[in-house]
Amino acid sequence: MLDLEAVEQAHKRVPEVTHRTPISYAPILSDKCGYEVYLKKENLQRTGAFKLRGAFNKIAILVEGGDKKGVVAASAGNHAQGVAFSAKHFGIDATIVMPDSTPLTKVVGVSELGAEVILHGANYDEAYAHAIAYSKEKDKRFVHPFEDEKVMAGQGTVAIEMLEEIPDLDVIIAPVGGGGLISGIAVAAKAIKPDIRIIGIASAGAPAMKHSYDAGTPIDSRSVRTIADGIAVRDTSPVTLSYLRKYVDQLELVGEGEIANAILFLLEKQKLLVEGAGSVGVAALLHDKLDLPKGSKVAVVLSGGNIDVTMLSLIIEKGLVKSARKMKLVVILVDKPGSLQAFTQTLINTGANIVQIGYDRTSTDLEFGDAHVSVDIETKGAEHQEEIRQALREGGFSFKEEH
Amino acid sequence: MLDLEAVEQAHKRVPEVTHRTPISYAPILSDKCGYEVYLKKENLQRTGAFKLRGAFNKIAILVEGGDKKGVVAASAGNHAQGVAFSAKHFGIDATIVMPDSTPLTKVVGVSELGAEVILHGANYDEAYAHAIAYSKEKDKRFVHPFEDEKVMAGQGTVAIEMLEEIPDLDVIIAPVGGGGLISGIAVAAKAIKPDIRIIGIASAGAPAMKHSYDAGTPIDSRSVRTIADGIAVRDTSPVTLSYLRKYVDQLELVGEGEIANAILFLLEKQKLLVEGAGSVGVAALLHDKLDLPKGSKVAVVLSGGNIDVTMLSLIIEKGLVKSARKMKLVVILVDKPGSLQAFTQTLINTGANIVQIGYDRTSTDLEFGDAHVSVDIETKGAEHQEEIRQALREGGFSFKEEH
Repeated sequence: MLDLEAVEQAHKRVPEVTHRTPISYAPILSDKCGYEVYLKKENLQRTGAFKLRGAFNKIAILVEGGDKKGVVAASAGNHAQGVAFSAKHFGIDATIVMPDSTPLTKVVGVSELGAEVILHGANYDEAYAHAIAYSKEKDKRFVHPFEDEKVMAGQGTVAIEMLEEIPDLDVIIAPVGGGGLISGIAVAAKAIKPDIRIIGIASAGAPAMKHSYDAGTPIDSRSVRTIADGIAVRDTSPVTLSYLRKYVDQLELVGEGEIANAILFLLEKQKLLVEGAGSVGVAALLHDKLDLPKGSKVAVVLSGGNIDVTMLSLIIEKGLVKSARKMKLVVILVDKPGSLQAFTQTLINTGANIVQIGYDRTSTDLEFGDAHVSVDIETKGAEHQEEIRQALREGGFSFKEEH
Repeated sequence: MLDLEAVEQAHKRVPEVTHRTPISYAPILSDKCGYEVYLKKENLQRTGAFKLRGAFNKIAILVEGGDKKGVVAASAGNHAQGVAFSAKHFGIDATIVMPDSTPLTKVVGVSELGAEVILHGANYDEAYAHAIAYSKEKDKRFVHPFEDEKVMAGQGTVAIEMLEEIPDLDVIIAPVGGGGLISGIAVAAKAIKPDIRIIGIASAGAPAMKHSYDAGTPIDSRSVRTIADGIAVRDTSPVTLSYLRKYVDQLELVGEGEIANAILFLLEKQKLLVEGAGSVGVAALLHDKLDLPKGSKVAVVLSGGNIDVTMLSLIIEKGLVKSARKMKLVVILVDKPGSLQAFTQTLINTGANIVQIGYDRTSTDLEFGDAHVSVDIETKGAEHQEEIRQALREGGFSFKEEH
């Protein structure tokens, strides 16, 4: 059963391995959104994410009960790390099933924690099915990433830590994928402070829980696609859904560009690396998705920091465009002497800084002599971008913007 | 005069604006290098760098003395932010001179803090000369980034904070550019704990202070070039040099790839964004530049986090290559059926993961029909890379590696 007592017991259990991560005031973000915002930095958690809390609580309870037959999980992400780390701590076997196509770095990361990795299946569903079958065949315990009340109780320890340090929080914002983290947080926080508001944020690219929450019944998605891979959950669990319906006050979606912008904000302004799933709460604040009373005391859970660094440059690019600091223009210049020069001069006159320019006269959709010019420019914000659009229109240039 | 008392007075002064940044144990780094390593996170300092401490101390002393005529600095970096922030705090004017070519984001960053920005000169020297002339003409106070004992005393407050929290430190490692930070740290730390070892790390791309330190006399560099722009100082200050010669025990250089690897390590393992200058200490530890007794208690100053995010992807790429997780191969394949397939199969057999492939048959240095193939592969480390080289040699492929 998931209740405050279960979370409090987990709160006694998990510090055997978890860090008590800092929660600290975020001045720039607070100024931007008009609330008093605190960030709970679970990206600084061991293994890089809160998932260790739930996995450890589950496995600790197994071991306390004398069950040391080993554990199995299906995950290529933070849950895998949490399970592998916890099993190693207790000296029991862990087997992690990942889809065949899993990047090498994720396999190595879990192997280094001493877990056996089985690559199986074309996608997560097939890996999941294999993990279940394998755990039965080998008489090992399957550890579900969220549809398990002991796992949820572990995740809920985040709320106890936050409320111990800031007892008068008005709002807690947490990411929603499968719903395990927010279920644990909501159950514990509402028991401690009944008038606290719990807000979940999901990715618009993985909206199953949002649709289910609104409809009051589980609705799965056909497919999911989001840079917030930690919350890219396709099927809704009826177990977590019932906790969300009962304890969570509001559930909102944020888009890909908004998530990218939040990742970039956290990097630049907080100097923190936070993964997509961990950034959705900040995305919601930056893009004004919540209508809270001015000055509300808001804690945002930065749930994890395990982002593939090779993806980071793409995300930064997206974030720069979304925050109006970069503009990507495509214009067709007609074959007239000086037209390229006139175009770039118009841009320079607005104070824009050209960082890249591509010039193509070979495209088949061009008239002979015309050229296709794509330009990336640094800009100072939305207002500056509007000035640039205006100047280009006045100069007679027809252009498109890429996003 | 720069002594413990001056630093202690600064230590009372600066908390009016500075954060007491966390210093915390770094388990993964400690395991890697065999010391007990603590990271002092000045990248989380207000304005993103320690420079606020020195600028604030200097300006506070001016204001305490009744001099509110305004301040001038030449900097496009962290010093500019520190001066602008401090001047704003006291409600006095700040003028920052930057070279003409300064990126927009840096200009905007300082303008947002209320400072006037003057773009002048083709390089830092010209901006610097203009700032000096301007301050004389307007009867304002020039704030030097390091050759000023009040600035150095402010930077030294980092040492007092570290030693208050961990009094039995054996070693402090700090970055060296102009030498202001390490002078302040060394003077204060040696007065508090005379047997402490102070180690400076400079960038091999900006080695003036290292050469001067070794020679015992100021030696300037012809030019500097490093991703650690915060310590890209060309000319040696005789003032800081004399402090380094007296109080700093050791000065070492790290290379560009080593710095990139340290930035990547701090991002991935610590989830922290640290700029190049702030990462040199970690670079020295990761690449085994120091020969300290095993288990030494070592504090490393992560001096700042203001890195241009648009440069980050290049740095990540460099870091992946340096840490043997990526390999860039170029091979010429002869015109024979199946030769590309044989090449990729050889790679795949070694467990390497191909992430990018370029195929070019148009290069003029090729025989007709031959092709130039460039491949980026993900690898598991140095040993794995050696296996791949071996397999390619056995397969009869001649290849080059790009770094």
